[in-house]
Amino acid sequence: MEVTRRNFKESLPTVYEAIGEADFLAIDGEFSGISDGPNVSALTNGLDTPEERYTKLKKHSMDFLLFQFGLCTFKYDQSKSKYIIKPFNFYVFPKPFNRSSPDIKFICQSSSIDFLASQGFDFNKVFCNGIPYLNQDEEVQLREQTEERRNQHANGVGTPSFNSPSSKSPAHVPDEHKDFISKVVKKVEDLLTSSDKCVDLEPCTGFQRKLMYQTLNWKFPKGIHIETVETEKKERFIQVSKVDDEERKRREQKKLEREQEELNDAVGFSRVIHAISKSGKLVVGHNMLLDVMHTIHQFYCPLPEDLQDFKEVTMCVFPRLLDTKLMSSTQPFKELINNTSLAELEKQLKETPFRCPQVETAEGFSSYNTAQEQLHEAGYDAYITGLCFVSMANYLGTFLTPPKSHICARSKLIEPFYNKLFLMRIIDIPYLNITGPDLQPKRDHVLYVTFPKEWKTSDLYQLFSAFGNIQVSWIDDTSAFVSLSQTDQVQIAMNTSRYAESYKIQKYADYVQAKQTKDQQDRQKQRQPPKTWGEDSWSNKSHYSSATTYTRSLKRSISPTQPEGGAEVQGWSHFSYADVAGGKKPKTDGESNSDAVESKTSEGWLKTAEMSESSDSSPEQQGQSSPEAVDTEGTGAWHQAPAPHKKGHKNKKKKNQAAASSSGLFEVPEVW
Amino acid sequence: MEVTRRNFKESLPTVYEAIGEADFLAIDGEFSGISDGPNVSALTNGLDTPEERYTKLKKHSMDFLLFQFGLCTFKYDQSKSKYIIKPFNFYVFPKPFNRSSPDIKFICQSSSIDFLASQGFDFNKVFCNGIPYLNQDEEVQLREQTEERRNQHANGVGTPSFNSPSSKSPAHVPDEHKDFISKVVKKVEDLLTSSDKCVDLEPCTGFQRKLMYQTLNWKFPKGIHIETVETEKKERFIQVSKVDDEERKRREQKKLEREQEELNDAVGFSRVIHAISKSGKLVVGHNMLLDVMHTIHQFYCPLPEDLQDFKEVTMCVFPRLLDTKLMSSTQPFKELINNTSLAELEKQLKETPFRCPQVETAEGFSSYNTAQEQLHEAGYDAYITGLCFVSMANYLGTFLTPPKSHICARSKLIEPFYNKLFLMRIIDIPYLNITGPDLQPKRDHVLYVTFPKEWKTSDLYQLFSAFGNIQVSWIDDTSAFVSLSQTDQVQIAMNTSRYAESYKIQKYADYVQAKQTKDQQDRQKQRQPPKTWGEDSWSNKSHYSSATTYTRSLKRSISPTQPEGGAEVQGWSHFSYADVAGGKKPKTDGESNSDAVESKTSEGWLKTAEMSESSDSSPEQQGQSSPEAVDTEGTGAWHQAPAPHKKGHKNKKKKNQAAASSSGLFEVPEVW
Repeated sequence: MEVTRRNFKESLPTVYEAIGEADFLAIDGEFSGISDGPNVSALTNGLDTPEERYTKLKKHSMDFLLFQFGLCTFKYDQSKSKYIIKPFNFYVFPKPFNRSSPDIKFICQSSSIDFLASQGFDFNKVFCNGIPYLNQDEEVQLREQTEERRNQHANGVGTPSFNSPSSKSPAHVPDEHKDFISKVVKKVEDLLTSSDKCVDLEPCTGFQRKLMYQTLNWKFPKGIHIETVETEKKERFIQVSKVDDEERKRREQKKLEREQEELNDAVGFSRVIHAISKSGKLVVGHNMLLDVMHTIHQFYCPLPEDLQDFKEVTMCVFPRLLDTKLMSSTQPFKELINNTSLAELEKQLKETPFRCPQVETAEGFSSYNTAQEQLHEAGYDAYITGLCFVSMANYLGTFLTPPKSHICARSKLIEPFYNKLFLMRIIDIPYLNITGPDLQPKRDHVLYVTFPKEWKTSDLYQLFSAFGNIQVSWIDDTSAFVSLSQTDQVQIAMNTSRYAESYKIQKYADYVQAKQTKDQQDRQKQRQPPKTWGEDSWSNKSHYSSATTYTRSLKRSISPTQPEGGAEVQGWSHFSYADVAGGKKPKTDGESNSDAVESKTSEGWLKTAEMSESSDSSPEQQGQSSPEAVDTEGTGAWHQAPAPHKKGHKNKKKKNQAAASSSGLFEVPEVW
Repeated sequence: MEVTRRNFKESLPTVYEAIGEADFLAIDGEFSGISDGPNVSALTNGLDTPEERYTKLKKHSMDFLLFQFGLCTFKYDQSKSKYIIKPFNFYVFPKPFNRSSPDIKFICQSSSIDFLASQGFDFNKVFCNGIPYLNQDEEVQLREQTEERRNQHANGVGTPSFNSPSSKSPAHVPDEHKDFISKVVKKVEDLLTSSDKCVDLEPCTGFQRKLMYQTLNWKFPKGIHIETVETEKKERFIQVSKVDDEERKRREQKKLEREQEELNDAVGFSRVIHAISKSGKLVVGHNMLLDVMHTIHQFYCPLPEDLQDFKEVTMCVFPRLLDTKLMSSTQPFKELINNTSLAELEKQLKETPFRCPQVETAEGFSSYNTAQEQLHEAGYDAYITGLCFVSMANYLGTFLTPPKSHICARSKLIEPFYNKLFLMRIIDIPYLNITGPDLQPKRDHVLYVTFPKEWKTSDLYQLFSAFGNIQVSWIDDTSAFVSLSQTDQVQIAMNTSRYAESYKIQKYADYVQAKQTKDQQDRQKQRQPPKTWGEDSWSNKSHYSSATTYTRSLKRSISPTQPEGGAEVQGWSHFSYADVAGGKKPKTDGESNSDAVESKTSEGWLKTAEMSESSDSSPEQQGQSSPEAVDTEGTGAWHQAPAPHKKGHKNKKKKNQAAASSSGLFEVPEVW
């Protein structure tokens, strides 16, 4: 179902119902661009730490607009033994609500726009009929503004201006408006003595209307009702009606309701995201880190500075996530799937040993046909992401004794994949772990190399030709990480380089150390005050309140529902990508979420799907702690009073054990 | 005529012909936004200096995209006594030309997009079929790249890498590609001994193709021709053909021509702007400063830092400009026209004492109907801008004895309006003088006032209520300029403020002085090196070369044709806008070029059209020097060798006198 500004309000109950009844939800977003950095490879170094990657994505990707949001709900019908799906394709655009609402600026990247255009994307639908939205801050601010305006009209005076010389008199009328205003007062006096019920004043400016409201409310505290009316030509004028007290109250009540309605309209698409969040259902996406970041950034709050805070906010908004790209690049799927791009994955998951999932489009929804690909329409991408998940989940069921052909979205079999978001092109850290600390691979086989800017990848191959296979991860024009296949070669390389003039080699650990020291010094130079989590920062309610403050406020106001917790990671050895190209500085495959970049680089200097077993990355941390169990009471609505945030440390160990034992339920010797 | 990527190449001769035969050209642009600053009023303070305004527009407006360009050519047909017009509406979009071409990012402002959407703007046409373009730097870079690639293929080796360990061997083939490459060599050897004429190698990556080119050119310097072919599925493979020397040369020549053609396609829409520039014809626009800035920025070069450099570049690109908004707000039109927004102006110029211009749309062009307004389609806006110009020009003819009903675009009567671009909402400087120094009004009746952020305009009126009419120009939340009606009140105001605690008053001159000192200190802190105009900066040919360097290079390479010079300004007294609103912090009318903002603020806190005679701004400089006469030889094409840039100081005085006497040709006592 296509949802735009035109049919949003009438579709909302259908959307709510679909979310409410679903077993799981699949989502996808289309953006106006991927990276505003100089090039994508700078954005995705193969040896980024999760913190570095998060910081880069936040800095270089969040000014793009998420302008199409796909949601496909999956509800299992036992009697039919198939999923009933309801696909939605939302067009989203930040149409300014009124003159004081934020006038959003967003970046477009011409390659992304061009790619979407070539796929038949309808930009007119986005820009002409996109559903508006507000984030939490904006919503609060708008509610406050409305409240304030209401009080102003009621009191007949402006907001009390601190230290304002004009605040003593009820309404200061500038000289040039005095004539106009006294004519207005005369007209109202005439109305009161005549038999007419109301009088329409002539159209005028907003400032004049403000003066009129102030003067009339002050002069005629009773007996009249004042209202701004808009003509068909969008001219606004004031209508003054004679009313008794009861009628006046009735009209004001009506106005209040209308304002409330308008406010909800302005919150717009954010209400859909709130509903998804509130449902606590499993949310499935493909390579979904950017989708999650954009969704939070656009519909909840500016992203927090720190990765840890981001993880906490994410768990509040989406208590259970599953990334099909991560799932398909993990055992037992990894061996069976050689291309994890969404389109290829969907094809492979129809073939043996997998089985094409049985789905049926719900009545009233037009059905997608996977034979006629409609890739890069968010609704379609969400749909096939869901299919991929079902196919993989059901495949896990074949390992059970007896085998099960349907594995539900809440099955323990799926838990190991919860809340791990695929990290594009990081050699030795396959995912961002939302509910716990990230993998910290030892990188003692990695060298940091600097060289003249004329060097190409082939020069690095040449330089390290004595050391067998290497992996090159470009940092910028004059530096790269080089991963050797043997850690014991590191010292040899260091020794050899001692006499080199054109290039320089440093051990990874030394490089990190030096960088941290430098970052710290930079921070001190900027005299950045340490982040404060104290209660006093709560008073900061400005529109541009810091993300940190906001994170906290969000964490308080959101009550996630029963996340079932992540699971033990059983070690991540033998996981690596062939990150080898050579000859030319690599452009990234860039499949990262929008495939715009992928299309540009279809020749593929790098193919993430071409995995090899050659690297010996050594994740230091083999077992991870499970996510903190979170309170299960706070299932309330988004704007309820914040429920106390139980840390639930006591449950931790127990859950952990449960998860650990659960992974023994089926006989896959090495899931990870 | 609507021109998109689809019909651009076939339309180009028509466009060139229309420009070539025209008496004058009218232009208009539509942008993806106006200001990325916090608010528009910060962008257009009523007391900006021209330098400040230029800097603000450059900083806050140039990241938007000019995505629709309107051109309407006007050719006078003596026999019919009417203009024959040819309107063009170009859709423009920076579609990346290839993988190494710049991936432009541009900002969209939701209010502007929403406004255009409401006017029926077709975004799909822009994004799917917009004509690509390159600026001068990009064009040079692309030509160099093509040249380099050509040399590479010819030599069979990569670009010489300085200090590169691999540059000695002709083609370093990484281990993992060795098998692939030796198979390729085998296939070509087989071809040479067989009777086949050519062999298609299997599709492969760009890197592999590069290796193949290098290896094959090196191994088989004669007898074969190598070419990359693209399948319908966009897969690329290499085709190797057996050829004799002559055939080889013929093929290479053909390839060269094809590459040249592709290059011209990439330069795309810029060729239209080059043609306009080369023609040296009068270019008419309405409120055209932003149009001119965007056009230069997008199709020529990044805008220079300094206003003076901008003026010089502008004169190179558009040797004769005329702004109908400035013309209509100047004597003798000023008295007759009370609203200078384009739509209103066009209506008023149909009525007495003006006469509706006689025009006819050329055969083969669909005609616009001014009754069915199609405002904000750039082609239509250009068309009615031209109509406005014709109507005003002809009106000037009525003052001649005997009166003339048609005044041509090269008439001396029009010269006073040349090269003066309207400055939105500056109280005492109506225009930017492209061909000379700007007006420098004394601002000794102006005060700089700082106050608590709760203050509103009404508070300032209250504060200065003793001084009669004042004008308030907001700077930010806590400061504003206040213009008093009498200069001698300034000292009284200063004296009164001495005991004030909540606010502070400073004379304008003191404020400017303090600001300049601060700016200077800031610059020193940043240790910004002084701009260098030395020859050595010429070596900087990188894509991101400094605008200053570029300006110079542009000035050298462009040879403007016979600008006829500006004219004496006969004094600019009694010119001011009623910039008075009061009560609330003013939002600007924002008609500035795209009317998106205008639409938002249709209630109009400020109406620039409501002019008053109340202010006593005193332009210090009453007579301006005429523009430098520029060499008339250099009428050559855009990319010709730079003609020596004669300063022509000798002509200066003469021209000046001519202009002065020309203003005596008709009996308008006070043109200005």
